[in-house]
Amino acid sequence: MLLHEDRLFPSEPSALKIARSLYAGVRNLPIVSPHGHTQAAWFAENKPFPDPATLFVQPDHYIFRMLYSQGVSMDDLEIGQPVVKDPRRVWHIFARHYHLFRGTPTRMWLDYAFQEQFGLTGRLSEATADLYFDTIAEKLQTPEYLPRALYKSFNIEVLSTTESPLDQLRAHEAIRQSGWQARIVPAFRPDPVVDPEFKGFAEGIAELGRQTGEDTLTWKGYLNGLRKARARFKSLGCTSTDHGHLTAQTADLPEDAAARLFDKAISGKAEKSEMVLFQAQMLTENARMSVEDGLVMQIHPGSVRNHNKFVYERYGRDMGCDIPSATDYVHALRPLLDRFGNEKNLTIILFTLDETSYSRELAPLAGHYPCLRLGPSWWFHDSPEGMMRFREQVTETAGFYNTVGFNDDTRAFLSIPARHDVARRIDCAFLGRLVAEHRLEEDEAHELAHQLTYDLVKKAYRL
Amino acid sequence: MLLHEDRLFPSEPSALKIARSLYAGVRNLPIVSPHGHTQAAWFAENKPFPDPATLFVQPDHYIFRMLYSQGVSMDDLEIGQPVVKDPRRVWHIFARHYHLFRGTPTRMWLDYAFQEQFGLTGRLSEATADLYFDTIAEKLQTPEYLPRALYKSFNIEVLSTTESPLDQLRAHEAIRQSGWQARIVPAFRPDPVVDPEFKGFAEGIAELGRQTGEDTLTWKGYLNGLRKARARFKSLGCTSTDHGHLTAQTADLPEDAAARLFDKAISGKAEKSEMVLFQAQMLTENARMSVEDGLVMQIHPGSVRNHNKFVYERYGRDMGCDIPSATDYVHALRPLLDRFGNEKNLTIILFTLDETSYSRELAPLAGHYPCLRLGPSWWFHDSPEGMMRFREQVTETAGFYNTVGFNDDTRAFLSIPARHDVARRIDCAFLGRLVAEHRLEEDEAHELAHQLTYDLVKKAYRL
Amino acid sequence: MLLHEDRLFPSEPSALKIARSLYAGVRNLPIVSPHGHTQAAWFAENKPFPDPATLFVQPDHYIFRMLYSQGVSMDDLEIGQPVVKDPRRVWHIFARHYHLFRGTPTRMWLDYAFQEQFGLTGRLSEATADLYFDTIAEKLQTPEYLPRALYKSFNIEVLSTTESPLDQLRAHEAIRQSGWQARIVPAFRPDPVVDPEFKGFAEGIAELGRQTGEDTLTWKGYLNGLRKARARFKSLGCTSTDHGHLTAQTADLPEDAAARLFDKAISGKAEKSEMVLFQAQMLTENARMSVEDGLVMQIHPGSVRNHNKFVYERYGRDMGCDIPSATDYVHALRPLLDRFGNEKNLTIILFTLDETSYSRELAPLAGHYPCLRLGPSWWFHDSPEGMMRFREQVTETAGFYNTVGFNDDTRAFLSIPARHDVARRIDCAFLGRLVAEHRLEEDEAHELAHQLTYDLVKKAYRL
Repeated sequence: MLLHEDRLFPSEPSALKIARSLYAGVRNLPIVSPHGHTQAAWFAENKPFPDPATLFVQPDHYIFRMLYSQGVSMDDLEIGQPVVKDPRRVWHIFARHYHLFRGTPTRMWLDYAFQEQFGLTGRLSEATADLYFDTIAEKLQTPEYLPRALYKSFNIEVLSTTESPLDQLRAHEAIRQSGWQARIVPAFRPDPVVDPEFKGFAEGIAELGRQTGEDTLTWKGYLNGLRKARARFKSLGCTSTDHGHLTAQTADLPEDAAARLFDKAISGKAEKSEMVLFQAQMLTENARMSVEDGLVMQIHPGSVRNHNKFVYERYGRDMGCDIPSATDYVHALRPLLDRFGNEKNLTIILFTLDETSYSRELAPLAGHYPCLRLGPSWWFHDSPEGMMRFREQVTETAGFYNTVGFNDDTRAFLSIPARHDVARRIDCAFLGRLVAEHRLEEDEAHELAHQLTYDLVKKAYRL
Repeated sequence: MLLHEDRLFPSEPSALKIARSLYAGVRNLPIVSPHGHTQAAWFAENKPFPDPATLFVQPDHYIFRMLYSQGVSMDDLEIGQPVVKDPRRVWHIFARHYHLFRGTPTRMWLDYAFQEQFGLTGRLSEATADLYFDTIAEKLQTPEYLPRALYKSFNIEVLSTTESPLDQLRAHEAIRQSGWQARIVPAFRPDPVVDPEFKGFAEGIAELGRQTGEDTLTWKGYLNGLRKARARFKSLGCTSTDHGHLTAQTADLPEDAAARLFDKAISGKAEKSEMVLFQAQMLTENARMSVEDGLVMQIHPGSVRNHNKFVYERYGRDMGCDIPSATDYVHALRPLLDRFGNEKNLTIILFTLDETSYSRELAPLAGHYPCLRLGPSWWFHDSPEGMMRFREQVTETAGFYNTVGFNDDTRAFLSIPARHDVARRIDCAFLGRLVAEHRLEEDEAHELAHQLTYDLVKKAYRL
Repeated sequence: MLLHEDRLFPSEPSALKIARSLYAGVRNLPIVSPHGHTQAAWFAENKPFPDPATLFVQPDHYIFRMLYSQGVSMDDLEIGQPVVKDPRRVWHIFARHYHLFRGTPTRMWLDYAFQEQFGLTGRLSEATADLYFDTIAEKLQTPEYLPRALYKSFNIEVLSTTESPLDQLRAHEAIRQSGWQARIVPAFRPDPVVDPEFKGFAEGIAELGRQTGEDTLTWKGYLNGLRKARARFKSLGCTSTDHGHLTAQTADLPEDAAARLFDKAISGKAEKSEMVLFQAQMLTENARMSVEDGLVMQIHPGSVRNHNKFVYERYGRDMGCDIPSATDYVHALRPLLDRFGNEKNLTIILFTLDETSYSRELAPLAGHYPCLRLGPSWWFHDSPEGMMRFREQVTETAGFYNTVGFNDDTRAFLSIPARHDVARRIDCAFLGRLVAEHRLEEDEAHELAHQLTYDLVKKAYRL
């Protein structure tokens, strides 16, 4: 078998025994996935996934960034091509380099999918590449492997996608109208209309005006347009917004200054510092709207996007070359928190790519401000060691109840069960250690395991 | 029972056995508490503590910040009120939310006090709230629970409070004159007369002049005033000063420039950058005085005070809304170290709220400069995981002998034995692991356990 | 015995058993030492090391910085003297303070040398100081303890020294001409001719001109001079360059701007910011040359050199008072990476003194860019805990194959076997834990242990 029943648990027997017992209580709970990047169209259309390379390799920047780092050509992997022309060849390249993933979460997610979803039990390698390819390709054509069937077999209770305010959400509507019983909801991600550096920013704002009937070339009309777009998302089940800026900087300008800044931003003549200030102001504006409409805010700062100029110019965005950078929260969030930090109806979930902020800034902030909660360890840190560091560095100051369970945050649909399984195991391993070291009673650990898996995420995201 | 005899030790049997043996050698050593925020008046007056809510909840920002973060009103907790009017109601709110503290050191400190000091053995909850309240309230009225009796029963050898240079130290004098055999000493914390942003800064300096007979409106007179205030503290047993700036920045200006800066600072017309520079200069001036009078300097930088504007405006200082920020030492301390870093008679104990500085800056600095020592993990990091990270990240470069044992740094008098117990257990757990991994011999670990608990703190603080 | 056979392995029996088995497979592999500061002259001349103090204490800033931090005088240790006049007295001071090294890697390296190389098995102390001194002194005069004999007994396959571009490499030539079968090679460290703040910078560039026959007072001639110096190093086996700047900043100026900057730099009139920019540009120029000639680049940023003014002025460079500082890579490396980041023939090995960059910047960068590899934990972090943090924080994003095995980076020749032994043990301990927690299969761990010890370093350094 590829996977051991006790994987990720402490090897010390007393802690292992407790971890196993905790995990038995949560392993079969439904999956709540409040933040991610799957496509609603998959479920609206319910067509088979085409082939193993298109399913596993092409969309997964965790995979091809590692291959690229070791000299594999992205062209050979057909990255960025609309259709993978020679999926078996791509699969062979992947299989030949599978050892590169030793010790990474990608390896664990993949092995989980291979074993649990496709019944493969020998290790992927050049030697087994064809067996893998044929087995997976064949199964993908069967009804059990259609997107809706997988959704059900994964025991998903809620799945959130992430969409632009300009998106018509037709797939979301189609799912609703189809009568299929599943809760797939959009999250509101306003980058295209709040980031002056976003390609097509001004056109986006004009389009927002067309869609909402507001004069979005004025500050008031623009804000009303956003309000209406949020309401449209909400009507399709949306409970959250998502904000992915370079920093966590917020601002709280007087209304007239904000209006002037907006005019400059849409004129295309704003300087860099003004564009950054506009984004900072828009975090506070979105917080204001959240106080009004109850949508939960998520802030995902700190990623330097498209760091590799060559790759960006040749292959475009989201090609595995975003790199984290040092991120301040304590000063950056102050303007927003001065304004709305003590609001009863506001929830802001903070994420970080800078683990140094866990114990220094995020846990102290979330352990004090009633509106703040901490999202789980994110992206590069969504890994066994990363999750453990999160719990170890956050819990003593923020407690468990200022955290919000797990996010899979993935575009790789088949990795969802594996990712949630890793998170559950690590939480049980952490709790098991606390119990084994007599820092927590076992009955409390059982209650916490359930809450970390299921209750806290539903409560925090108002699902 | 609330507490297990082996709590905080490694669960792996070989390391556990060593940790137990080490702990047996230090558990009953006297408590040396060289830095904290208890009130000398408690011991001068020796009146009963009024009730459980006033004793445990109202003064402890670790407790009410967590409750506030989860939506409990500070008004309902009667925070900031001179007298708690309905202590039983406050206690019930606290008990109802006791699960929030799972996994935090606060929980462990409280359970220790409940069990060891009040004989309570069932977990605190809504159901046991009245039992707890009544048991504690009753005992507080007995002679065994008066401040002086508790001091003795806690086996405290030295206890330092922290006082303003303007404080008359009447309670300290009263304790001395009462003939009670206890060593309660003040630490000299000059914020009110060295921080131009401190409310009443100029008045404080005038008052310093009145008290010392120096013309404190001149730079020389001001420095002499400080020297005399230090001497007055020293005469009451003080061995240390304490400096809590936003950063660790030091300066070493020429005398005339320093004098001009002082003039500007007391004029109330200094700009922000000048006020910061003045504080930086005053660290170096205090180091100079320490070379003269032998008082040990403590530097506690990095806390962004009163981060929550609403809470600060409504409830005032020290209300659980101070948040750490990134802190540099390597550049900041250089002016002071250039001047006094190699002085034989100088000891400076450095603290941090930014754990990234442990291995990067603090251990390398303390592992080289003869005047530098490292204070224990502080405030948010005074916790089992935090203490373990401190030892893991500091020891290999600075060794054990450039550290100074434990500080409880608390205003919660009843938590003192619990806090020292946690520190002793974690040190024994760390040493136990080193022995179990054959990185240290067992006889050396026994010697070190004693030194980390008792000898190093007395030596570093010159007690 | 001073050393336990299972030292540094996990004490938990299942992980211990695997770690032992992995270590058995690598403990006797040859030592590949691709980066360090031993002296080629030792092996060219093959004279006996003079005495224990001169061998162990005087050159090792790990030792005397710790002694100095605890008040031992550097004069008493005869640091900086051309010859140690009273080695027995120095040795006694060292022995008397040996407890200071408890818990440090220095202690483990020393005990290894004492036991494995000199057969000493009782702990060093004041009581055993003479026994140690006499035993070591006597053996140093025997043929088995001559540099070449030790080199062979240490089972070294390759040893790299680090040299200035102006060095004549006579010792390296002498070794080659002597017919002795050993692979001792220089690394090219251009500080004296690329850092305008280096004492004698302009003279160094003039000397480079004399040595290479290029007009090094022109930008083109200077670059050609460097190219020729690199070629000369390469002809003596050099495979790498080494760059130790204060930051990792790179620049990619247009050619005419670079030429003007060079003119300013050699004129001695450059401002601080221009000198820094020149160094940044020179990283990119060296990368360009590496693309041409295949030398592997090493970048070692982040050390604030000579932090202690008094010690620097009295004793000079490299006296244990270099202190790490926070280091950015994600922005700093961008100009170089924009230009050469996707070159097939380029390898850049990154080091850090700022552990926060492991998971935040270095692993994401190395896990993407084909030219980047991560050097092992460096200097203050070349320790059991430091190495473990490196693996824990790097592996999940960069994998194992973007790392390059171990560097001892030492001037203490006798510590080389001990340092490699510690590295092998920690890697086996880490892999053992992964296997015990079912995160890696045992056959893969065996393969990885061999690769981390031997294969990756040879491949990365093109040895």
